[in-house]
Amino acid sequence: MSAEPAEATLETVGWVGNASDGFVQLIDQTRLPTEFTRIECHDVSSVWEAIRVLRVRGAPAIGIAAAYGAVLGGQRALNDGADMLAGLRAASAHLRTSRPTAVNLFWALDRIDRTAVDASGLAPGALLDRVLSEAHAIAREDRAMCRSIGRFGADLAPHGAGVLTHCNAGGLATADYGTALAVIFSAHEQGKAVHVYADETRPLLQGARLTAWELQRRGVPVTLICDNMAAQVMKEGKVQLVVVGADRIAANGDTANKIGTYGVALLARAHDIPFYVAAPSSTFDLSLADGSAVPIEQRDPREITAGFGRQTAPEGIEVYNPAFDVTPASLITAIITERGVIHPVNETAIRAKLGT
Amino acid sequence: MSAEPAEATLETVGWVGNASDGFVQLIDQTRLPTEFTRIECHDVSSVWEAIRVLRVRGAPAIGIAAAYGAVLGGQRALNDGADMLAGLRAASAHLRTSRPTAVNLFWALDRIDRTAVDASGLAPGALLDRVLSEAHAIAREDRAMCRSIGRFGADLAPHGAGVLTHCNAGGLATADYGTALAVIFSAHEQGKAVHVYADETRPLLQGARLTAWELQRRGVPVTLICDNMAAQVMKEGKVQLVVVGADRIAANGDTANKIGTYGVALLARAHDIPFYVAAPSSTFDLSLADGSAVPIEQRDPREITAGFGRQTAPEGIEVYNPAFDVTPASLITAIITERGVIHPVNETAIRAKLGT
Repeated sequence: MSAEPAEATLETVGWVGNASDGFVQLIDQTRLPTEFTRIECHDVSSVWEAIRVLRVRGAPAIGIAAAYGAVLGGQRALNDGADMLAGLRAASAHLRTSRPTAVNLFWALDRIDRTAVDASGLAPGALLDRVLSEAHAIAREDRAMCRSIGRFGADLAPHGAGVLTHCNAGGLATADYGTALAVIFSAHEQGKAVHVYADETRPLLQGARLTAWELQRRGVPVTLICDNMAAQVMKEGKVQLVVVGADRIAANGDTANKIGTYGVALLARAHDIPFYVAAPSSTFDLSLADGSAVPIEQRDPREITAGFGRQTAPEGIEVYNPAFDVTPASLITAIITERGVIHPVNETAIRAKLGT
Repeated sequence: MSAEPAEATLETVGWVGNASDGFVQLIDQTRLPTEFTRIECHDVSSVWEAIRVLRVRGAPAIGIAAAYGAVLGGQRALNDGADMLAGLRAASAHLRTSRPTAVNLFWALDRIDRTAVDASGLAPGALLDRVLSEAHAIAREDRAMCRSIGRFGADLAPHGAGVLTHCNAGGLATADYGTALAVIFSAHEQGKAVHVYADETRPLLQGARLTAWELQRRGVPVTLICDNMAAQVMKEGKVQLVVVGADRIAANGDTANKIGTYGVALLARAHDIPFYVAAPSSTFDLSLADGSAVPIEQRDPREITAGFGRQTAPEGIEVYNPAFDVTPASLITAIITERGVIHPVNETAIRAKLGT
């Protein structure tokens, strides 16, 4: 276990050392909030496992972890004297199977694959250096995008606003500053006196374990609630806006995000509360016309029946455990990206802002 | 620990023995679903504690437990040679402080108090017998009301219906057959092929621990979901009606029930799904014009931060933990009582059906 750094900014996932003998280091988010632990991944399969079991999670962070993970495949080829391009490709192909919904995973690995092909004329060591540089660029760009999202989003938060968020779209879901939480951090840094209501987010409690922890350590006032309390908190007038992250956004603005997001959007609409999605451009999948084709990951029933150390449901009970849902564009007030705010949410506005 | 009975019907709470030396016996619902245990309460304070920590819960069952609990106060007076009426009254007054929201608690104790006053001319032993008879009557009437609610409610369930329910309004919440679950049991017994989606119901997971268990042991098909999945299940067309219980219903039909019920009602409305409340007439509080005056119990933050056997939120985090919310009558399609179905839901229809 490594000690928790004193500074507010945490490096969620990074690369330690040089390309030929370095490794991936990441915060093990399954241990938070009671233990702050960094783990080292020295091969592709341990990165795959870290993504699969959510040691690293959040669409942008998954993309960064996968990009670094692919480098480990090339490193292995280098040390084994095997074909570098084949090693990188095999790693990329395997990492694509870790989780299906977040498009950033595929976007980052596409960049790695293209980089490898473009540089395939280089000697193996130089090619690996080039691929690691690309992975570093993905992480660096993510940092910049998150800061930009924060600046654009903070303008949408009134002074003294109650802000409800679901799951964790914070520093732990990105390189280091977050998407939805970037909006909150930025508003807080501007002295806007925001107060956050954090849905705990069953089954894996990313809201309770990660969002509450991130907000607390940055000194942002936060109240933890169960998911089923969101409607009541809205009814009491405590929430002036909702902001969430995204795992994949279709061309028309339909947004896949953590299960429960769609319900929160309906509740926000019923209470006339604006509902914002905050995400970098890497989260858009313009190959999908709408959200109906987003693959939705189904996860282990035991996350619901025995999630935190003891069995809380009858033996043999049938469980439905989709990890994501899709919020239709019609329920989304605006999408906050690093290039500005998309409003109204439709394909024309999205393509205009993304420049595609 | 006592063995789980083989028959479908369970006695949630009952009285064992005669008035002068008997005791209250109840299923310890905090141990379910992994342990089926009955506990004995030999004094008022252990009944108070059982209600307070939800060993017995559910508005009708709380009323029955409290009525029997008051008898224990009289029994103590009898054995101490103290004043019987004073002993009964002190017990009743104490039990009223156990939980604030469910009106059945106050309704049942009012009946006990009136019975004691009316019979105060009797010798102490005879007076105590009379009060125990009244408690038995409350339990017996509850059984009959639940069966009647089931019959009226089953008519509202189409063949093959998906039915979503929240928390536990089953046999464990009543003398033995339930309110919301009575509708489901009755439809199932009629061969209607219903399939239940049970919200797990954070923080105390009464849906996962109790509702799923009751349905499973009666052979009703059930799928357990997290609360934040209800919207998605509705969107997928899997739910044709919602039915929930109630802790207190105001004169205009506004209904206090387990936290999260209001949100489910909004989601049902957004998907054009009928939303039913099932409750005996003892759950109505016609002294309240609307739901705004229902006292809402706030519970221990640790139910949210450390509910599963280990800590799942940061140390010192602020928590909001209301145990109930109020669903406005406008979101309730109908209220199913033992006297028939109230529809539309308004004060005139309620008073007509209740005969007040």
